[in-house]
Amino acid sequence: MLPFKIQLRSIIATTLTLSLAVSSFATLAADKIYRLKLAETWGPNTPILGDASKNMARLAEEMSNGRLVIRIDSANKHKAPLGIFDMVKSGQYDLGHSSSYYWKGKVPNTLYFSSMPFGMISTEQYAWFYHGGGMELMQKVYAPHNLLSFPGGNSDIQMGGWFKKEINSIDDLKGLKIRIPGFAGEVMARVGAAPTNIAPGELYTSLERGTIDALEWVGPAFDLRMGFQKIAPYYYTAWHEPGSETQFLVNKKTWEKLPADLRTILETAFRVAAFDMYTQAIDANANSWATMSAEYSDIKVRDFPPQVLEAMQTATEELLAEQTNHDPLAKEIIESQKQYLTKVRAWTDISSKAYLNN
Amino acid sequence: MLPFKIQLRSIIATTLTLSLAVSSFATLAADKIYRLKLAETWGPNTPILGDASKNMARLAEEMSNGRLVIRIDSANKHKAPLGIFDMVKSGQYDLGHSSSYYWKGKVPNTLYFSSMPFGMISTEQYAWFYHGGGMELMQKVYAPHNLLSFPGGNSDIQMGGWFKKEINSIDDLKGLKIRIPGFAGEVMARVGAAPTNIAPGELYTSLERGTIDALEWVGPAFDLRMGFQKIAPYYYTAWHEPGSETQFLVNKKTWEKLPADLRTILETAFRVAAFDMYTQAIDANANSWATMSAEYSDIKVRDFPPQVLEAMQTATEELLAEQTNHDPLAKEIIESQKQYLTKVRAWTDISSKAYLNN
Repeated sequence: MLPFKIQLRSIIATTLTLSLAVSSFATLAADKIYRLKLAETWGPNTPILGDASKNMARLAEEMSNGRLVIRIDSANKHKAPLGIFDMVKSGQYDLGHSSSYYWKGKVPNTLYFSSMPFGMISTEQYAWFYHGGGMELMQKVYAPHNLLSFPGGNSDIQMGGWFKKEINSIDDLKGLKIRIPGFAGEVMARVGAAPTNIAPGELYTSLERGTIDALEWVGPAFDLRMGFQKIAPYYYTAWHEPGSETQFLVNKKTWEKLPADLRTILETAFRVAAFDMYTQAIDANANSWATMSAEYSDIKVRDFPPQVLEAMQTATEELLAEQTNHDPLAKEIIESQKQYLTKVRAWTDISSKAYLNN
Repeated sequence: MLPFKIQLRSIIATTLTLSLAVSSFATLAADKIYRLKLAETWGPNTPILGDASKNMARLAEEMSNGRLVIRIDSANKHKAPLGIFDMVKSGQYDLGHSSSYYWKGKVPNTLYFSSMPFGMISTEQYAWFYHGGGMELMQKVYAPHNLLSFPGGNSDIQMGGWFKKEINSIDDLKGLKIRIPGFAGEVMARVGAAPTNIAPGELYTSLERGTIDALEWVGPAFDLRMGFQKIAPYYYTAWHEPGSETQFLVNKKTWEKLPADLRTILETAFRVAAFDMYTQAIDANANSWATMSAEYSDIKVRDFPPQVLEAMQTATEELLAEQTNHDPLAKEIIESQKQYLTKVRAWTDISSKAYLNN
C-alpha cells in the first residue's frame, strides 16, 4: 500500500481553498518521512551480522508505513569499519551497527557489553540486559557521548579457535603465536602466549606457513569458508566469547526528534532484529558444523585442560580487578555482571546443563 | 502524544467546506482504529505467562499510534481457560494467548509446537521455528481451523518435578502416583507410573497427604510460592518440557481485514513479546532458585538415573511412532523436529554444553 501521505497530498493539491489546512497537515508527525542513515562495521552482504540491520530497517519501514526510511551504508561505502562510534556520535550518521568492544581503546567501559571471557552465555546475558540492569549500565556508558546503545544481535557462542598442535598444559601456551585481538588477547598474553592481530585476508596463509600457530575467528558459520580446518586440526571449545552481542547505536539528537510511535517502532525493530540474528546464528552454526564435520572428519574438538582454563580465568580476573581499581563505573558494571552470573548460572546448571548432560 | 486522528478530526470539524475530503479521510486505513479482543488461558495478573499479552498489546498500541487497541480478557472473564482455540476459531475473540498442546485432544498435531520430551531446548526450538521450517508446519496444522499461530513466549526449561522419595531405578516408578498431565503423562504411564491430573489448588494438600507421591509443575519461578519444596525434598531435572513455548492465535478473518502495516506491527509485537517472556522467565527462575535454595537448603536436586531416562525416551519414541503410522502430517512434523534436533544438538554439544561443563 502506498503510504497515506501520498493520498493526502493529492487531495490537498486538488483543493485550493485548503491553504490553512495544508500548513497544519504539513506539521503533523504522522505525515512526515524520517530518512535515517545507518553505518555498519561489516562489508556489504555479510551474512548474519549484515542481516541484522537489513531486517531492522525493513521492519521499521513496514511498521511505520513508510514514515521511517533507513539507508544502510556498509564498510565499502564509508571506509571506516571501526569508526562507527565516532560517526554516530558526531551526527554524520544517525544510526550504527557494530560491536561495543571495538571502542574499548576510546571508552574502556564499552568493553563489557559484547561478551566477556568466562562470562554469561547469550540467553543469560539477554536476561541481564533486559531484567538485570544491563541496559541501564550500558546507557550510563554511552550517554556522555551523545549516544544510545541497544543489543544488536548475538552471533552465538564463539569457539576457542583452531590450533595446529594439541594444548595439554599451560606450558604448551608459552610463546604460542596466536591471532586473538582485544581483551582475550591480553588474557592470552598474561598466561604466556604471544597474541597478535592479522588482517582477515592473510589469516589462512599465516596459519599455513607457520607465521602463527593458532587463531580464533568466530564459529562454524563464519569459519567454514575460511578453510582453517584444512591446516589446523584441533578445534578448541569456548572460553573467551560465550555470548557475543553486537549493538545498535543511535545519535541522541536523532532520537529526540522522532515522534513517540516511531521511537517505539525503532526500539522494537532493534530488539527483534537482535533476537532474530541470534536464532539465525544458531541455525547457521548448526548447518555449517554439520557440513564441516562431515567433510573434514579429521577435526578434533578439544576442551582446554582444566589447568589452562584456571590460568586463563585467573588472568581474566586480575585484568578486571585492575579496571575496577581506578574506575567506579567499571567496578559497578563488573560487579553487576559477576553477581548476575553467579545467580543465573546456578539455575542454568540445574536446568539446561543438567538436561544436555542427561 | 494524542494520536493523529484526533488532530485530524478537529481540523475537519472546523472546516465545513471539506465534506468531500472528510469522506475520503474516513476510508483511509491510517485513520481507522482496530479494536481487537484477546482471550488468554491464564488468570488475571499471572506473572510471566500473563505479561506476554500485556507487553504485546502495549507495543502494538504504541507502534500503531493508537490504531491497534487490544483488550485482554483473562480466564476469570471468559470462564474458558482451555477454550481459547474454539473461541478464536469461531471469531468470538480475534486473538488468543495459550499453549498449543492444550488442543491435542481436538487436533492431535497441535501437540508438537509447545515442547516435546527429550526434544529441543528453547533456543534450538526458536531456530527451528524461524529457520528450520517450524513456522510453516505450524500454519499447516492451524490453517484448516481458520487460525494463524505464532510463538507466544517461552517459559524456559521445566524441571522434572518434586518427588517424596528418590528414584534409583525404573522399579521406583512402578505404581508411583504422579501429577503429570498430557503427553508426558502418557510416557510416564508407559514406564509403569500412575499419572493423574489434579486441580492446581489441591496439589499441595494431595502431595502432603500422600494422595500423590510426586508432581511436576513448572520451574522455580512458578514452584516457589506453591511450597512443594517443604514436603517433597527431591527436585528432579528436566526431561519432558525442555523448551515450553506458548502461542498467540489469530482469527484469519481478523488478520485479513488488517492493513499491511498493522499486520507487521502485530507480528513483530508477537515476536518480541515471545522472546521477552523467555528472558523474563530465565530471570525469574534464577531469582526464585536463589531464594528457594537459600531458604530450603534440604532440597536435593537429582537427575533421573540413565536407565530411567532411557526407558522414558523409548516410551516417547514408541508413542510418536504410533502417531506417524496413521497421520502423514504428524510424520512430517516429527521427522522435521528429529532431523533438526540431531543437527542443532551436535552444535550445542560442542558449544554451550562444552562451555558450561568447562
